[in-house]
Amino acid sequence: MVNAGDMNGSGNLMDFLDEPFPDVGTYEDFHTIDWLREKSRDTDRHRKITSKSKESIWEFIKSLLDAWSGWVVMLLIGLLAGTLAGVIDLAVDWMTDLKEGVCLPAFWYSHEQCCWTSNETTFEDRDKCPQWQKWSELLVSQSEGASAYILNYFLYIMWALCFAFLAVSLVRVFAPYACGSGIPEIKTILSGFIIRGYLGKWTLLIKTVTLVLVVSSGLSLGKEGPLVHVACCCGNFFSSLFSKYSKNEGKRREVLSAAAAAGVSVAFGAPIGGVLFSLEEVSYYFPLKTLWRSFFAALVAAFTLRSINPFGNSRLVLFYVEYHTPWYMAELFPFILLGVFGGLWGTLFIRCNIAWCRRRKTTRLGKYPVLEVIVITAITAIIAYPNPYTRRSTSELISELFNDCGALESSQLCDYINDPNMTRPVDDIPDRPAGPGVYTAMWQLALALVFKIVVTIFTFGMKIPSGLFIPSMAVGAMAGRMVGIGVEQLAYHHHDWIIFRNWCRPGADCVTPGLYAMVGAAACLGGVTRMTVSLVVIMFELTGGLEYIVPLMAAAVTSKWVADAFGKEGIYEAHIHLNGYPFLDVKDEFTHRTLATDVMRPRRGEAPLSVLTQDSMTVEDVETLIKETDYNGFPVVVSKDSERLIGFAQRRELILAIKNARQRQDGVVSNSIVYFTEDPPELPPNSPHPLKLRRILNLSPFTVTDHTPMETVVDIFRKLGLRQCLVTRSGRLLGIITKKDVLRHMAQMANQDPESIMFN
Amino acid sequence: MVNAGDMNGSGNLMDFLDEPFPDVGTYEDFHTIDWLREKSRDTDRHRKITSKSKESIWEFIKSLLDAWSGWVVMLLIGLLAGTLAGVIDLAVDWMTDLKEGVCLPAFWYSHEQCCWTSNETTFEDRDKCPQWQKWSELLVSQSEGASAYILNYFLYIMWALCFAFLAVSLVRVFAPYACGSGIPEIKTILSGFIIRGYLGKWTLLIKTVTLVLVVSSGLSLGKEGPLVHVACCCGNFFSSLFSKYSKNEGKRREVLSAAAAAGVSVAFGAPIGGVLFSLEEVSYYFPLKTLWRSFFAALVAAFTLRSINPFGNSRLVLFYVEYHTPWYMAELFPFILLGVFGGLWGTLFIRCNIAWCRRRKTTRLGKYPVLEVIVITAITAIIAYPNPYTRRSTSELISELFNDCGALESSQLCDYINDPNMTRPVDDIPDRPAGPGVYTAMWQLALALVFKIVVTIFTFGMKIPSGLFIPSMAVGAMAGRMVGIGVEQLAYHHHDWIIFRNWCRPGADCVTPGLYAMVGAAACLGGVTRMTVSLVVIMFELTGGLEYIVPLMAAAVTSKWVADAFGKEGIYEAHIHLNGYPFLDVKDEFTHRTLATDVMRPRRGEAPLSVLTQDSMTVEDVETLIKETDYNGFPVVVSKDSERLIGFAQRRELILAIKNARQRQDGVVSNSIVYFTEDPPELPPNSPHPLKLRRILNLSPFTVTDHTPMETVVDIFRKLGLRQCLVTRSGRLLGIITKKDVLRHMAQMANQDPESIMFN
Repeated sequence: MVNAGDMNGSGNLMDFLDEPFPDVGTYEDFHTIDWLREKSRDTDRHRKITSKSKESIWEFIKSLLDAWSGWVVMLLIGLLAGTLAGVIDLAVDWMTDLKEGVCLPAFWYSHEQCCWTSNETTFEDRDKCPQWQKWSELLVSQSEGASAYILNYFLYIMWALCFAFLAVSLVRVFAPYACGSGIPEIKTILSGFIIRGYLGKWTLLIKTVTLVLVVSSGLSLGKEGPLVHVACCCGNFFSSLFSKYSKNEGKRREVLSAAAAAGVSVAFGAPIGGVLFSLEEVSYYFPLKTLWRSFFAALVAAFTLRSINPFGNSRLVLFYVEYHTPWYMAELFPFILLGVFGGLWGTLFIRCNIAWCRRRKTTRLGKYPVLEVIVITAITAIIAYPNPYTRRSTSELISELFNDCGALESSQLCDYINDPNMTRPVDDIPDRPAGPGVYTAMWQLALALVFKIVVTIFTFGMKIPSGLFIPSMAVGAMAGRMVGIGVEQLAYHHHDWIIFRNWCRPGADCVTPGLYAMVGAAACLGGVTRMTVSLVVIMFELTGGLEYIVPLMAAAVTSKWVADAFGKEGIYEAHIHLNGYPFLDVKDEFTHRTLATDVMRPRRGEAPLSVLTQDSMTVEDVETLIKETDYNGFPVVVSKDSERLIGFAQRRELILAIKNARQRQDGVVSNSIVYFTEDPPELPPNSPHPLKLRRILNLSPFTVTDHTPMETVVDIFRKLGLRQCLVTRSGRLLGIITKKDVLRHMAQMANQDPESIMFN
Repeated sequence: MVNAGDMNGSGNLMDFLDEPFPDVGTYEDFHTIDWLREKSRDTDRHRKITSKSKESIWEFIKSLLDAWSGWVVMLLIGLLAGTLAGVIDLAVDWMTDLKEGVCLPAFWYSHEQCCWTSNETTFEDRDKCPQWQKWSELLVSQSEGASAYILNYFLYIMWALCFAFLAVSLVRVFAPYACGSGIPEIKTILSGFIIRGYLGKWTLLIKTVTLVLVVSSGLSLGKEGPLVHVACCCGNFFSSLFSKYSKNEGKRREVLSAAAAAGVSVAFGAPIGGVLFSLEEVSYYFPLKTLWRSFFAALVAAFTLRSINPFGNSRLVLFYVEYHTPWYMAELFPFILLGVFGGLWGTLFIRCNIAWCRRRKTTRLGKYPVLEVIVITAITAIIAYPNPYTRRSTSELISELFNDCGALESSQLCDYINDPNMTRPVDDIPDRPAGPGVYTAMWQLALALVFKIVVTIFTFGMKIPSGLFIPSMAVGAMAGRMVGIGVEQLAYHHHDWIIFRNWCRPGADCVTPGLYAMVGAAACLGGVTRMTVSLVVIMFELTGGLEYIVPLMAAAVTSKWVADAFGKEGIYEAHIHLNGYPFLDVKDEFTHRTLATDVMRPRRGEAPLSVLTQDSMTVEDVETLIKETDYNGFPVVVSKDSERLIGFAQRRELILAIKNARQRQDGVVSNSIVYFTEDPPELPPNSPHPLKLRRILNLSPFTVTDHTPMETVVDIFRKLGLRQCLVTRSGRLLGIITKKDVLRHMAQMANQDPESIMFN
């Protein structure tokens, strides 16, 4: 009998499953990956290549190519992300201007390009040239007057509606995943979640095109967040070309982390900031190798964008600035005030936006996404046109607000009353009294601020690509500029006040309102996203000097503290929560006193854990168990009595293995014994061929004892990227904890609805 | 009988150990900490404070203070590290000049300060003023001539010997840990190793003082590495003031990571580079909270240093540079060549230096550290004085090599033949033919380069504080400047060559030799330390522009690749290895196919694992076991037969607990049964009081199965910072793997001597 068993065991038939079968090691949609498993699969692969490489020169070259493929992918991502960013910038520029008029000699020129090519313009009138025709001039040959204004107004709204309608339709028809900023989903994907198609080619194409459309339509949204999504789509595309990345979900995520860095790099022209953003905000598993590669991708992207030079200033962003005056200690007070404002705005925005999005999700509102976009676009366009600060594109607005008033500045914000005796050098203009233009600008800015605050809440989350970096920065920049002008005028008119006496003598250039705008922008962005280091570094790369880091940091820290006092979640975490993604945040600290035994399934009183035994169940038993439950996998024990754990088998692989065996392996019938041991069990004579499934058994399942504190369990799940973990007591299997159980428990402890965690 | 047991169990006596006893939770010197345990202790502490804070306003304030203490520590570290760096810079400046002469009106002025205060100097002769007297002028009233030269030469050597002798004596007598750069040890400490006194107050004091002495003595070493050590000592000092950090080795290491960032921040004037250095190079556990705090500490330190303004240029470093010309694609070739040079230099340096240090460790050479320092100092001073490029301090040399030749530059390196018709603006001087000064300089630089290369190998590792950032950068900068001048002259004389034709027309300023020096410095530093991102960012912060990142990166990557081809270890890892510290590098990838069962103790054939049973051993049994073995802890099993694991008890805590119980608890004698269960075991009547030790039992020991691949085990040890891990098979305890076992196994797999790992 023993011999019969042995014979069965030694046949080729039995080891049939030792050769891999298709689809093994892949995951289902909306499921979580197991990082440890992916990592060990990659090591296996690496080992194979290394041992093969000694066999022949060709294999050696192949192994070199494999080692270099990471850098090649980074290079390609950088090139494509930079190119796409440049194209988007150029297209947005052109289409934004198209709402107001057209370049007669060459319709594909934007307003600025049109007048560059013209020789008839002087430096002061850069914006006015005969080649550029407003629609009213072209259609009714009138450039001034009420009817021309109304015609331009009407056409502005029509273009906006047209762009927005096209965008929302494209998204709905071709790529529903192209909507939103994409950062919450990318965070979830990087943490090990599968959303098929989210980073697909269609999403890439449609998101790029619709991004141009929605930004040009004048809606209160930015292209920065979606650019990260676009860059990640590039990353996903290129990683699918190399089997090293396409077949390993863990390695693929390393590429995506780097792609996110490249995205921010081109969005803000800040390669280092991009890497830190990826590290601080979106990435989950960020080994040092990825740090270096991210940096490479970010730099390549930045240089590609620079060589495209979309803004014609060989800068990577529209709002690059240089200031000429230092800041003074006393100014920290208004900077901190701006930080408080930023924190309050962040809280207000997150609360209102989440409330509105929840309403959209749960009521009939969500059924009319096209109508919603049309209505919001119409309202935005109608209100925005009359006010010069909302009519132009938001990044131009930010650029103007950040700017220091030089001698040649023609902006209304720089309409100061000049001292006729002034003979100072150009870039050191003393503080001057504000002229009527500044007062008008203040009113218009205040109105624009209120409008932006309200409309952004309703815009973010619509079914179109929409980022909120730019609107947040605009809100902060407007508030900051107003505060800055206020402080400047106060200092000018009250030189003798004790706070100004030391640093702001008459004739000195002591207050730079542009700096206040920048500080305000950082504060508001920080309040909404809760970024800290990466935010300051991005701003530092915009100004290019350490000089202003202290104000920026003071505002960013204040804003984060104020916002955190009202709720720890940033906008991205809030959206992840709203969508119920299984995201285990690295930043959340779990400080409750529960133990693994409180969280594991089965709970007290529940049916016992569904387990497989190592050598006593038939194929039919296993199939029944699979049919009756929906668990992702089953622990394998010595016997139901001893409950001593020997391994863990994945549901998906069990199904595939049994299906394969039934089709291709003789003698495997419903009555065959399934065994997970090395040697087949002793069977009575004439029993059918047993089925060996040791190959799919994970012999090193992760276990903790029932007394392990949950904080340790959470830490283990986070750091090792586990999908599940078995709970034992003195060697006996007691239960199982999955990532979803951990998330539910954390939600419960935080007094939230544990049912909000929806996926596995 | 059961009742008796119950009564025993319910008495207060039994729970005596529930109150903590002294020294619990501390570690012995030269032992490894358990990160998970430290973390859970901190969470306990945090929970206690949070629950207490609701009791009274005073407790609430205390909890707030506790929450803020992290920021306060950072602020203090930044302030002290910045101040110390400033003081060191000023003192080094003064003492370096003291070797050549003295400022007559005020001896505490350095040469430059002395001539600043003088009104009699013109801009061209900044260095010459009557107030500053060379020793020969002062002593024999001769400033020129052979005898004056010899006198100056002699005094230069004497001063150098005097400084070096003082330094090495101070180190030997007061703080032996103050020698070396400190970075290898700090890396080890941050990875969870205890070296008492390494970051102590004496070390701080002596290292600061001796650092000034050795740098002034003209030895080929820098202050940058030791500054990191000094900053970490500051961090350790301030963290000892707050119980949150002083009582938790894990939290303390978060502070030290931030302190390391502050150290690099002041060493190079690069706060972001400092944070990245800490992240990439020295830190082990770097949560996001630490990122933000490191950044804060680094900024505070940088601003403190700037307000001290030691270089009088309101820059943080002597070698801040600004270039005026861009680089061209064709220049990438020499840049990559410099990268290759850097990689070769790194390999050569590491091999030779380690060989020399090993010889010092193993032969009689190591017994005469004072003599060694004296000899090396004498040789250095004798050879260095005649060559102007080695006589001055190394950072001044680097500063001169980095500099672009402006119109006002008086350096020999800028002795070009000027075109008399030149009417160009000051900062756009075209390429010119080299004058005789440049040729002389080239020879001197070549000699200086060879000298630096040789002497640095023997200098690094002596029993004095010594960093090698500066010597490495100097080697690279000299090589780079020579290559740069070569390319420049080549381009000038061969405008028509195809590679120059496109970008280097006659009269254009196309090659900046200073940039080559900077690229060379980055390459050499990269070759020695294998830093990548942080290196590029530090260099980027020195130039302050994205413009030159591509050359720097090309050189850094090439250098790393070339150096890695000859051996993966950087100089710090090599020194860690040499000293046998138990350091588990995050960067090493473990790709071998071994399993936990191959590594665990006991091996096959060895005596079985020493275990405690849960309720059948007497106090005497336990004491005997402790006496006979030197393990750090013992697994506790249900019984020796079943081998079912219930927990793990630390040796140190067992000893303390038994000692305490014997002293303070009645009835505990050698025959008392020790039990680790909740309830005492059933005992025969009249048996002595049992001793309950459940409190010191770790109920959640980490286990893996014997089939777990070692790559997973290594990963778990790294990511969770374990000290040991138990190995089970189907619920039975098989063995134990300690961090030392893992390191030994890794050494064995890499064909190194496993006995080189020395500490626990």
